[in-house]
Amino acid sequence: MITLASDFGSPYPAAMKGVILSATDARLVDVSHDLPRQDVRAAAFWTRETLPYFPPAVHLVVVDPGVGTDRAAVVGRVGDHAFVGPDNGVLRPVARRIAAETDADPEWFEYEYDDPASTTFHGRDVFAPAAAAVHDVGADAVESLSAVVPLPDEEVCDLRFPTATVDGDAARGEVLVVDDFGNAITNVPGEFLGGRTGETVSANGTDAPVETAYAAVEPGERLVTVGSHGYVECGVNRGRGDEAFGLAPGDDVRFRFQS
Amino acid sequence: MITLASDFGSPYPAAMKGVILSATDARLVDVSHDLPRQDVRAAAFWTRETLPYFPPAVHLVVVDPGVGTDRAAVVGRVGDHAFVGPDNGVLRPVARRIAAETDADPEWFEYEYDDPASTTFHGRDVFAPAAAAVHDVGADAVESLSAVVPLPDEEVCDLRFPTATVDGDAARGEVLVVDDFGNAITNVPGEFLGGRTGETVSANGTDAPVETAYAAVEPGERLVTVGSHGYVECGVNRGRGDEAFGLAPGDDVRFRFQS
Amino acid sequence: MITLASDFGSPYPAAMKGVILSATDARLVDVSHDLPRQDVRAAAFWTRETLPYFPPAVHLVVVDPGVGTDRAAVVGRVGDHAFVGPDNGVLRPVARRIAAETDADPEWFEYEYDDPASTTFHGRDVFAPAAAAVHDVGADAVESLSAVVPLPDEEVCDLRFPTATVDGDAARGEVLVVDDFGNAITNVPGEFLGGRTGETVSANGTDAPVETAYAAVEPGERLVTVGSHGYVECGVNRGRGDEAFGLAPGDDVRFRFQS
Repeated sequence: MITLASDFGSPYPAAMKGVILSATDARLVDVSHDLPRQDVRAAAFWTRETLPYFPPAVHLVVVDPGVGTDRAAVVGRVGDHAFVGPDNGVLRPVARRIAAETDADPEWFEYEYDDPASTTFHGRDVFAPAAAAVHDVGADAVESLSAVVPLPDEEVCDLRFPTATVDGDAARGEVLVVDDFGNAITNVPGEFLGGRTGETVSANGTDAPVETAYAAVEPGERLVTVGSHGYVECGVNRGRGDEAFGLAPGDDVRFRFQS
Repeated sequence: MITLASDFGSPYPAAMKGVILSATDARLVDVSHDLPRQDVRAAAFWTRETLPYFPPAVHLVVVDPGVGTDRAAVVGRVGDHAFVGPDNGVLRPVARRIAAETDADPEWFEYEYDDPASTTFHGRDVFAPAAAAVHDVGADAVESLSAVVPLPDEEVCDLRFPTATVDGDAARGEVLVVDDFGNAITNVPGEFLGGRTGETVSANGTDAPVETAYAAVEPGERLVTVGSHGYVECGVNRGRGDEAFGLAPGDDVRFRFQS
Repeated sequence: MITLASDFGSPYPAAMKGVILSATDARLVDVSHDLPRQDVRAAAFWTRETLPYFPPAVHLVVVDPGVGTDRAAVVGRVGDHAFVGPDNGVLRPVARRIAAETDADPEWFEYEYDDPASTTFHGRDVFAPAAAAVHDVGADAVESLSAVVPLPDEEVCDLRFPTATVDGDAARGEVLVVDDFGNAITNVPGEFLGGRTGETVSANGTDAPVETAYAAVEPGERLVTVGSHGYVECGVNRGRGDEAFGLAPGDDVRFRFQS
């Protein structure tokens, strides 16, 4: 199985699929091709939150604003999972997450390539062939590929999400992403809201009740909840939380319970 | 085969796919993840108009504004088809349609769950595992699942589309949905236009010819036609009928032939 | 394998998939259902640039503004590849491309149909069944289908992209399409920029450097590059080239190197 994630929209992913299917009969599963464009951190977030649910697979992740520069292509391995993508940190958070869940250590390899057919579409010309090649030998035999060179962990570009601070009735964090429903997903751990359903909390000065279901408030009304990723989210029942709270990815956010 | 329909956009459907593929090797087919957001009636319309074309499958439909409340999860069965989704009526019209076409009776079951990992993403934590479980035992053995309890038909939430009235040269109905092309699809049966191609009909006072092809009028010009669902639609050749006729889902619409 | 390309958005492609899967168990691969709406030339461009990467398959392409008129349905064959779609030229460029790459000649057939269930959705009622039928007999046995009649090449609707003119430091061409990143892709061959990386070129009077990577300029800055299709493209690093250069599909564009 090869999963595909990118910010390519349509129809560039089809060229990647064609290249892969010309090389292997792997099952293909689209994760998303609408990841926030050129946003490596958002791609790292969404792949960390979706790929661990998959059975062992080769995970191709191409959000690559550095395409055509000298950034390397990397292959990662965590247990039976393999990852293929640019060396810009995008693969790190998901690899760490799966490593933590499976008690395995991530291993990294540079995937060497030269003179691809294009300088602007390495998804098609570098990463898709790499994913097919990794799939064909299997995650446990990545080393057998001649294009692959082991990379020490410290030489692989890293990416870490900022850490929130929680202090009793108050928390400070950051909006990591806004999902397609408009929920502003922060890095504040859900435990901050633990057991306080029905209380009022403010987010950057905007008050809203803590709820466990969107429908606990009237349509159009704000709420603060623990999202499916385990983080505090700012939402609106049948509406967009980002707009109602005035929050965008990267914004600082301060929560405070009324007392 | 498991079909997937939701209003999740991207990339939440990937988490559902990962969960399913970790439990079963069923073939997955995306029906849509761009159903009108939180719109149970539109989801019921589009699934009724697409799922009956599929061979027997487990149809997962998650448009679920009540997620996290005490609304039940249900499993339906009509012949060899099974359905999994929230008990908000979304599965009823497609089940009735397939029942009518196959002369089978829909049967319903509650799918019991408790304490899913999240209160906001039952697609991942409740419905995806349910769909995989139903797929694994097969539609004819839904009863063998321990999480499943038979539900009398009258205890399952229902959803019916409004009925139009046709009286000779006039019809009154409602816009059910607007498709991605901008066609305003009403609940007025296509028979209302039967045999009157070329005549002029008004829709809420806006005149347009009855045609059987968009290209029968010039680009940018309005027409009224029988759509692929068998209903009267208001469209524009290479343009958006909803804008040209001033129609949105839920709007009342009155058609009248000029005489 | 059957690939699917259309301008249907969502969820109409699902009805096509259901029809196909009710007739055959072919592997389905979505190429795109977000091709520029009703834009036959853009569909011809994108299918030419993606389908040749696939292994032999039946390629279903439905961008069909003439649906419901008397335009024919056609089946094409080039070596082991087959094509199914409306006779509006959309299949011609990809067939020519694959023919050139494989040294095979395209062959064409009319696919006869009458009285489909709808006049507005031949994707579901004509082309999907045709693709399934072609898949089942195989590209080499298209003639065995009773619905199929050989068509002389000159009777098949043609579509050719305009040709650019290059004269030393200057080139005149046209914007063929704008991709989802906002790159304005012209018909000027990439050779026009050959070896002149770092020089300044103007596009309709707007200056930009020639670069081989978007990231060679600062975020928000313009560049001119050779895109992955081999044509000159006008882009912006992490932004939209179409807006920054004021270019839209169909626009004439003049490039001139400063001297």
